[in-house]
Amino acid sequence: MHRYRLTIEYDGAPFCGWQRQRGQPSVQEEIERAVETLTGAPAPVQGAGRTDSGVHARGQVAHLDLERDWEPFRLSEALNHHLRPAPVAVIGAARARAEFHARFDAVERSYLYRIANRRAPLTLERGKAWGVRMALDAERMAAAAAHLVGRHDFSTFRAALCQAKSPVKTLDELRVERVGDEIHLHVRARSFLHNQVRSFAGTLERVGAGAWSPEDVKAALDARDRAACGPVAPPDGLYLMSVRYPEAALAPPEG
Amino acid sequence: MHRYRLTIEYDGAPFCGWQRQRGQPSVQEEIERAVETLTGAPAPVQGAGRTDSGVHARGQVAHLDLERDWEPFRLSEALNHHLRPAPVAVIGAARARAEFHARFDAVERSYLYRIANRRAPLTLERGKAWGVRMALDAERMAAAAAHLVGRHDFSTFRAALCQAKSPVKTLDELRVERVGDEIHLHVRARSFLHNQVRSFAGTLERVGAGAWSPEDVKAALDARDRAACGPVAPPDGLYLMSVRYPEAALAPPEG
Repeated sequence: MHRYRLTIEYDGAPFCGWQRQRGQPSVQEEIERAVETLTGAPAPVQGAGRTDSGVHARGQVAHLDLERDWEPFRLSEALNHHLRPAPVAVIGAARARAEFHARFDAVERSYLYRIANRRAPLTLERGKAWGVRMALDAERMAAAAAHLVGRHDFSTFRAALCQAKSPVKTLDELRVERVGDEIHLHVRARSFLHNQVRSFAGTLERVGAGAWSPEDVKAALDARDRAACGPVAPPDGLYLMSVRYPEAALAPPEG
Repeated sequence: MHRYRLTIEYDGAPFCGWQRQRGQPSVQEEIERAVETLTGAPAPVQGAGRTDSGVHARGQVAHLDLERDWEPFRLSEALNHHLRPAPVAVIGAARARAEFHARFDAVERSYLYRIANRRAPLTLERGKAWGVRMALDAERMAAAAAHLVGRHDFSTFRAALCQAKSPVKTLDELRVERVGDEIHLHVRARSFLHNQVRSFAGTLERVGAGAWSPEDVKAALDARDRAACGPVAPPDGLYLMSVRYPEAALAPPEG
């Protein structure tokens, strides 16, 4: 068997999320279907991040095993052919060692959350950003975000159905950037709790709108209580941008 | 009567274009319908640029007359309410003099043409850019574009059904910019022939792909013959970005 690492981009709107779910269209299922059409054999595809329903990806990473030795570029072209018309594309492919694991070897995930901050409803960005009509103060949001960076018990920002063993995580970055009429949240950590980024986005929006102070966010974090969280922002604005691996995990197979 | 100038954004995909056409959904019709729902009376809406089917706008400009004196911000909010769920939004509104004409007073239109230049099919940018799989040389495209800037007979780059009186136009800008894996064409002129920007984009793509030399574009221009044009690029990548007016035309009404 030959293992491959794929980098995958998708529009999350039509999907129940990355992970296969009975009776609902998922990104994983689309890719597994394309692989089976290509090779004639079923092959499970393991993703690094289980993005939720409606969440997009610019750089999801997955691995899979194939009987035949494919030239990686040819493999990506063939999979893209069979993925049509789903809004899912393989944007990179490489040979991987047999022990490479897209999920367990990942040491960092980077997300972008886009808030389109304007009065008018979204047209060209519809489904691609969260439209917030009330003027947001990005500097207040940045002050609040500073309280969240670092190692904390993030119980407040964790969905009830989160399966992580511990609510303690290290948030490496939560940067607030104004880009024209958008506010971008750049979020980076080894791993995340379920709905953590959307919980951050919804809470920071409250700060930007003036309803919460930056210190309220600190208090919410310290409460370690889901009830202290602000609203959970919609999936439309969330993008899994990239997944980082140690050099050793990315080494090509021997021989 | 009170005249208003609106700045309008839309996703062109579901429309037959700006202009009303019997039995087909148009942007103009959506706005006129919203105005009539709001005021109870039909009011024709005049646009600055008659964008084609599938062409987008970030800054279309239109004018209309209303019986009642509306505060412009309230007018835009009310129209946006009635425009839902169409992907059309009023992003600016202002009182205008009775003689202001969105189309005839315009002294410059700016367009953007987005080419997404990569092997993988488009997902998040689907319908929002032209996906070109062959690697394009932006510098070659820029060299070709330089031949088109200035005052010329653009018969080569004019659709058969173009209604302009003369094929002679002055092209003020045709700038080629590489932005990540996209190539952007920034195009600016007082006015354009029908399909002119898409004819430029399709022809410059041939140059970027190596099929044409920059000098071939000069020869095509000099031929003044539609048959000498390259392919017409799809509408997906085209955006009407802004329309410029002389200061005097933008003056508020007296009183």
